Amino acid sequence: MENDTTLRRLKTIEGHLRGVIRMVEEDSYCIDVIRQIQAVDAALNKVSAQILENHLNSCVITAIKGNNAKEREKVLKEITEVFEMSTKV
Amino acid sequence: MENDTTLRRLKTIEGHLRGVIRMVEEDSYCIDVIRQIQAVDAALNKVSAQILENHLNSCVITAIKGNNAKEREKVLKEITEVFEMSTKV
Amino acid sequence: MENDTTLRRLKTIEGHLRGVIRMVEEDSYCIDVIRQIQAVDAALNKVSAQILENHLNSCVITAIKGNNAKEREKVLKEITEVFEMSTKV
Amino acid sequence: MENDTTLRRLKTIEGHLRGVIRMVEEDSYCIDVIRQIQAVDAALNKVSAQILENHLNSCVITAIKGNNAKEREKVLKEITEVFEMSTKV
Repeated sequence: MENDTTLRRLKTIEGHLRGVIRMVEEDSYCIDVIRQIQAVDAALNKVSAQILENHLNSCVITAIKGNNAKEREKVLKEITEVFEMSTKV
Repeated sequence: MENDTTLRRLKTIEGHLRGVIRMVEEDSYCIDVIRQIQAVDAALNKVSAQILENHLNSCVITAIKGNNAKEREKVLKEITEVFEMSTKV
Repeated sequence: MENDTTLRRLKTIEGHLRGVIRMVEEDSYCIDVIRQIQAVDAALNKVSAQILENHLNSCVITAIKGNNAKEREKVLKEITEVFEMSTKV
Repeated sequence: MENDTTLRRLKTIEGHLRGVIRMVEEDSYCIDVIRQIQAVDAALNKVSAQILENHLNSCVITAIKGNNAKEREKVLKEITEVFEMSTKV
């Protein structure tokens, strides 16, 4: 299942984030902490892209092939929205 | 035509960028230059989102409704790719 | 201590991320999951900025006022590096 | 002079952007246009990082070594601000 890959990755990222928290608790060098946070960020972006890919290959295909114009519009609008947001975070 | 809006926006951004070049020529304060470059960036991201929206509502719908499985796959793959790239720039 | 604020924020983000994991486990709608991941991203960026601010007001000032040219160079180089990376994640 | 490198890069980017405008005028494939816009974005980010580096090695050093506490505070605050903004565009 695709969910399994997503879940596994997210749990790895959770572990990574806990590592960052430990670094702060142990008073690690600021720049090292920032770099680890950026690594967590990059990993999260990869998961997002993977989830979007699954979404495109399931819900989006169904919506576009379906007869519900409103649903199709909603589904396409959402993709533009997450794309636009992705340029901001 | 949707292209007209895109073109107009891109030309405005070109003007903005020329303004940034002028700022550097006139030895403006570094931080002010960086802020203007970030504004150009943000404007470019908006244009990208608009182009993607047009694309979803035309080519993507056509490809998904069409019978060419390879074409459909290609079109969906591209969206994931530009999404993933958008998190990196 | 500034570390306390950073720690508290990171632990809040960890809770947020666990919420995202739960959403995936419960098979939530893909777009909702992506949006929550983007919110986690945005929160992490804020923490990074806060850590950088503390760093500038402590280590960076010390390094620049100090007599160790190599240390000063290193500290300034690092800031450019995390800045450049921040435009990529 | 450092400004020369910045200027040359910005003018190259201006040429790149004009190329993107031409692509839209010639009705190029949406995804290709988006990819070129993302390339422009990435190039702009590099210029920003370069400008910041120059800034750190001149104004910031001067401000921190100087006796004007307010100026020093302002200069450090600005770096945090452009860093935070860079995570958003």
